[in-house]
Amino acid sequence: MDAIRWEGKTLYLLDQTKLPVEEIWLPYTDYRPVADAIRTMVVRGAPAIGVTAAYAYCLAALAGEDLKQAKAVLAASRPTAVNLFWALDRMERKAGDCGDNPETLIAEAIAIHQEDVAMCKATGLYGASVVPDHAHILTHCNAGALATSGYGTALGVIRAAHEQGKVDMVYADETRPLLQGARLTAYELVTDHIPATLIADNMAASLMAKGKINMVVVGCDRMAANGDFANKIGTYSVAVNAHHHGVPFYVALPCSTIDLTIPDGSGIPIEERDKNEVRTLYGVQTAPATVEVYNPAFDVTPHSLVTGIITEKGVIYPPFQENLKRLFG
Amino acid sequence: MDAIRWEGKTLYLLDQTKLPVEEIWLPYTDYRPVADAIRTMVVRGAPAIGVTAAYAYCLAALAGEDLKQAKAVLAASRPTAVNLFWALDRMERKAGDCGDNPETLIAEAIAIHQEDVAMCKATGLYGASVVPDHAHILTHCNAGALATSGYGTALGVIRAAHEQGKVDMVYADETRPLLQGARLTAYELVTDHIPATLIADNMAASLMAKGKINMVVVGCDRMAANGDFANKIGTYSVAVNAHHHGVPFYVALPCSTIDLTIPDGSGIPIEERDKNEVRTLYGVQTAPATVEVYNPAFDVTPHSLVTGIITEKGVIYPPFQENLKRLFG
Repeated sequence: MDAIRWEGKTLYLLDQTKLPVEEIWLPYTDYRPVADAIRTMVVRGAPAIGVTAAYAYCLAALAGEDLKQAKAVLAASRPTAVNLFWALDRMERKAGDCGDNPETLIAEAIAIHQEDVAMCKATGLYGASVVPDHAHILTHCNAGALATSGYGTALGVIRAAHEQGKVDMVYADETRPLLQGARLTAYELVTDHIPATLIADNMAASLMAKGKINMVVVGCDRMAANGDFANKIGTYSVAVNAHHHGVPFYVALPCSTIDLTIPDGSGIPIEERDKNEVRTLYGVQTAPATVEVYNPAFDVTPHSLVTGIITEKGVIYPPFQENLKRLFG
Repeated sequence: MDAIRWEGKTLYLLDQTKLPVEEIWLPYTDYRPVADAIRTMVVRGAPAIGVTAAYAYCLAALAGEDLKQAKAVLAASRPTAVNLFWALDRMERKAGDCGDNPETLIAEAIAIHQEDVAMCKATGLYGASVVPDHAHILTHCNAGALATSGYGTALGVIRAAHEQGKVDMVYADETRPLLQGARLTAYELVTDHIPATLIADNMAASLMAKGKINMVVVGCDRMAANGDFANKIGTYSVAVNAHHHGVPFYVALPCSTIDLTIPDGSGIPIEERDKNEVRTLYGVQTAPATVEVYNPAFDVTPHSLVTGIITEKGVIYPPFQENLKRLFG
């Protein structure tokens, strides 16, 4: 399963806003509508956004456009996921080295894309080693094949553990307001024949109280140097509940999601999105049109609630500050 | 604001499934469709269900039907809210006393209805005394005028505190899957000009972490003798998060919601509802049609997470077991 394809000189994105009801691939030959696609979440998930931005940078190079300007437009599409800036910085360094040669830049974007697949597979295998037998795993939002270049981070861990016969059930939080859990994670799990149960976000605590969940694994949009991390809104509530019930809580991510320039979670910028995402669903009004809304796209989970950090280089345990530093040292 | 009216020999219910977009009053002269209306949540909220069932019992008496049979059909409509059984038992006792005389039964139903209004007002005043100045109050689901006979229990506390100038902001959880918070609580707050902000359920923890909430108050569908209580699914997650963040957590309810025959929360029957409530919204598919779903309508919050119980007789503090017993003694 993938959601990003590069063919000839065209970028194709699977429109994730239409899943699971429709599978529509949209073609892009201009970088500007790609920035819009990131903003409107045609493509989402921190690693997938990074890969998409790298290809969009190539579209600008192919058109002979100002690459500094292209980078700025793409970087302004969403603020929280650090992979976006990481991928654009890497493309800009390569452009400096190769004199803006489009073919060299395309090769670099393809390398980022392929490395992402390899990273997910490695993350999955490391993560599977901490999954208990007869696992009943809760996940939030979609950190799956659709959020990456295939296979997934949190869902990569689940896929690898499922291949090892360890997974009895995966509970997927539907993840309001945009329902990435219901629309995307449930879709990936059903498609891959992994046992899956969909719940509303507010039901997870009740399952924990009944002893029905023995592991939580989620993805990550940006991690600070001390292990605090931003992920889809609602992740923090899951972490508090896991802590209260003694359920191990893991976060799975590529090292490119770790931002050592930010000391702790308070420094991670949190995107606030359109209030109508909460007042309506698929255009249907679900609340008074005039009611005030608070709609942050992410929240920050402190490292104190995290059992382990699963990366493509291995699983990291506390003290996170020292052990994350060592990872890059 | 009310949702239940008795005029002549007809019961009228405001169709709460259509709010806030449409205000439609449905007439009933037969008790059977009233049982359906309770099941499909045209009317909902523990106190409102009790009042509705009492009037439906009168419809059966007016038609000269078997009252034992009518009571059984009405009692089977929903399993968790104890007010339903309490109101039907009270009507049956009255029927025994008055030889099934319809006029006497109607007077009894009207008494239940009026007592509910008085109960909400008293609950509101007692509750307002524990609301802090500059209150930022979180509530879940709808324990408002629409869930009762007007004014509300949890929202009654908020209304009374607002009349005293204490309320800076009310945060309303939208309350998936049926969105009673978005559709009904937000509607009541906006209509009454009480400052209100709507959030997705998974955002409450993030607000608590920012120090934006200094009190939680929720309603109740059934409370056991030790203070454990069932309320709308998601209440337990709010309670765990309030506990983690040191935010006072109150539950507001009429004494008729307290079931001393059940020693603790494990004995409260929890209704599981149709899986398509989670897979779809207003008929729009939001998840794969075949994915398994867990959809309990309620969860149980243990008394250890409760700061105080607000009733029409006063606010009760721990030890709840002894103090609840004293309330009835």
